[in-house]
Amino acid sequence: MNSFSETLIHSLLSEYDRNLTIEGVNGVRIAKRLGALSEIGLTPDSGSGRMGFSNEETAAKNVLTGWMKAAGLDVREDGAGNVIGKLEGSDMKDRVVMAGSHLDSVPNGGHFDGPLGVLAALEVVDAWKESGYKPRKTYEVIIFSDEEGSRFKSGLTGSTAMTGHTNQEKMRAVNDVFGTPFKEVLEQAGLNEEGLFDSSRDFSNVEAFFEVHIEQGKRLEREGLPVGIVSGIAGPCWLQVGFKGKAGHAGNTPMDDRQDALAAAGDFVRQVYRTPAEVSASAVATVGQLQVYPNGINVIPGEVVMTVDIRDIHKETRDELADRVKELALQTGEQYNTEVSFDEKVRIPPVPVQESVLKIIEEAVESLDIRPVLLPSGAGHDAMMVGRCVPVGMIFVRSLDGVSHHPAEWSSLNDCVLSIHALKRTIELTMERGI
Amino acid sequence: MNSFSETLIHSLLSEYDRNLTIEGVNGVRIAKRLGALSEIGLTPDSGSGRMGFSNEETAAKNVLTGWMKAAGLDVREDGAGNVIGKLEGSDMKDRVVMAGSHLDSVPNGGHFDGPLGVLAALEVVDAWKESGYKPRKTYEVIIFSDEEGSRFKSGLTGSTAMTGHTNQEKMRAVNDVFGTPFKEVLEQAGLNEEGLFDSSRDFSNVEAFFEVHIEQGKRLEREGLPVGIVSGIAGPCWLQVGFKGKAGHAGNTPMDDRQDALAAAGDFVRQVYRTPAEVSASAVATVGQLQVYPNGINVIPGEVVMTVDIRDIHKETRDELADRVKELALQTGEQYNTEVSFDEKVRIPPVPVQESVLKIIEEAVESLDIRPVLLPSGAGHDAMMVGRCVPVGMIFVRSLDGVSHHPAEWSSLNDCVLSIHALKRTIELTMERGI
Repeated sequence: MNSFSETLIHSLLSEYDRNLTIEGVNGVRIAKRLGALSEIGLTPDSGSGRMGFSNEETAAKNVLTGWMKAAGLDVREDGAGNVIGKLEGSDMKDRVVMAGSHLDSVPNGGHFDGPLGVLAALEVVDAWKESGYKPRKTYEVIIFSDEEGSRFKSGLTGSTAMTGHTNQEKMRAVNDVFGTPFKEVLEQAGLNEEGLFDSSRDFSNVEAFFEVHIEQGKRLEREGLPVGIVSGIAGPCWLQVGFKGKAGHAGNTPMDDRQDALAAAGDFVRQVYRTPAEVSASAVATVGQLQVYPNGINVIPGEVVMTVDIRDIHKETRDELADRVKELALQTGEQYNTEVSFDEKVRIPPVPVQESVLKIIEEAVESLDIRPVLLPSGAGHDAMMVGRCVPVGMIFVRSLDGVSHHPAEWSSLNDCVLSIHALKRTIELTMERGI
Repeated sequence: MNSFSETLIHSLLSEYDRNLTIEGVNGVRIAKRLGALSEIGLTPDSGSGRMGFSNEETAAKNVLTGWMKAAGLDVREDGAGNVIGKLEGSDMKDRVVMAGSHLDSVPNGGHFDGPLGVLAALEVVDAWKESGYKPRKTYEVIIFSDEEGSRFKSGLTGSTAMTGHTNQEKMRAVNDVFGTPFKEVLEQAGLNEEGLFDSSRDFSNVEAFFEVHIEQGKRLEREGLPVGIVSGIAGPCWLQVGFKGKAGHAGNTPMDDRQDALAAAGDFVRQVYRTPAEVSASAVATVGQLQVYPNGINVIPGEVVMTVDIRDIHKETRDELADRVKELALQTGEQYNTEVSFDEKVRIPPVPVQESVLKIIEEAVESLDIRPVLLPSGAGHDAMMVGRCVPVGMIFVRSLDGVSHHPAEWSSLNDCVLSIHALKRTIELTMERGI
């Protein structure tokens, strides 16, 4: 029997058009690298299990570091565990253009979300090495730590630290999903709190950051397009909502004398699901995580804690939806005679992509004979956090069936390679002209 | 600072009427024994954590075994870990009268549910020892294993084994909530599968089984009565219900293109909560346990598995409610484009208490100048399982606020001691007259 990575590489190459291996961008190398990464943290469902700051995330960073060095990059790690591979510019070495993404995954996630963006940024360097292209400005390939946020219920840890937006007080107090304090988790990953808090960098000489990422939706598939240009990134609000009732015996407590936290929570989840449509066409709200206490088969639930993920690309409607969700929780809590509590874990403003960046990416995409289509990103990305400091651009790659955060996540190698050509051209244009 | 047991004993004795320490029944001893047991598996919330077949349950059985031996009982353990303390009859030693309950608890449960029934059965022996009463028939004090069922999602493990109703095929295949196979759990408790399957006993010489138990409801409190007589025991149906949708990214999947297993499950839980009232006044249904997969903050839930506990004292309405719950699950599953699965874990017929048993308990209760009131038991008990083989009787003790399966579970020592007097008188009448 073949290993999973062999199967993955075979699947990728079986549908690959080798004419796309031009200008130093090599589809076979991409396939092999995606395969090699897939083995790190491989789950029983053939998914990816590389939680932020886990041994698996570190192992994946180490593999990438090796490839970066082989490509001629000068590699360093900052205090947040972000890996930065630098290629000095020939002419304007004080100006920096950055590209990258992350290597961590959600529990049992896919093999493209994150790794593709990192490999794309690196492939640009390998391609230049082969073609002899010398960038005028300094180019940096970035691997951000803990983007997904499954560990601390708040993602973008690495990009938040690098851009100096870390809430130190909050992070000092946080425990991961296993109950381990932030400080200890960092130490297990060979890092420390002070190092992370000190890892913000000066962005004044950075011209732009670019990120290739799978779409995680079906819009490009429906348009029949391999890649798309992100018009803006929806900012998420993560709201932890608790319902507190009273535990009691499931047999001897009459129905009209209960304070059932799960009955309240269930009704609330149902209503949350219906509410985005009332606010905006692009708004979404998801209860992804929910815990019942004490979770005994014959015990009326005394407490339920869940997280609501609320997003929109417009700040006004996103905030309106968050307000409505809170209002619903209060109403439902009252109806079921349960106490309601809130804890806002994250509220990040949506990030627009500036016109000059869109123009450059459009030119790059058109140079590949692909119709340039703009689409908003419902998902948050490291580019959203970096976008607080410098102009950012994102290139989306078509996702099969729109599936993501799931072992079945898939993008064809053709589409991946086309996105890398678009990224490479975008970076070259930025090197030559500036934003 | 006092230990928890000292605080518990102090609270019990502070409201105790010492005039109730008569005929050998000793309230102070009961308080001290409840206190001693409370320390075994004490949780951070001052609750009881003695899951079936845990080290804590075994430790509690060992303490009771010591007290049984000190009271002059001949103690043995059967293949299911049930502990049997025997006092041979003076005259009709081949006839047996039994009393008892269990020592395991739900996660973070109370200190009365189970232990009180075991201590009551033993107190009868200590009382006889002091008063010099010699029972004509053999008397057995029983501690049943794993009554609550939090471990394997199916309770009454010990009483089911003793009465020969164990489904061997099912139990061989079952894992506990931590994923450990039944066989290994037994082995960790010093038992084994074959021993448990062989532990059924001959009940042909057993005249009756009696169980003292806290009410776990508010009816006696409302009637102003310390004890009540159980008219019948509602049989539970435990239905595991699964909703399977499709995991996906919480940000990039439009609301109208989701198969969200938790949205379906939430709506279902809400409807389950409303349905018992449509079927019968005494029917109840509870979703106590619910798990979300993958349970990631920004992942649309792909799967939810929960258990519905459905009860009524009438078989017809109980079964009708179970059918309605299944129908609701199918309808809701269809509405949310999710697959529905069922696994019926338990379906036990309700057990009536026979007229002759009710008469004897009524006489015993009246002898204490307490108005005899009949009430149904919504909760299942070991007496329900034993009731399949021999006549059973149950005496309920008033519960403060009706709270149960919770650290705040409480019955006053006066009420506990009155129930023991009632049990003692019931057993003596059964010894003298038969059922």
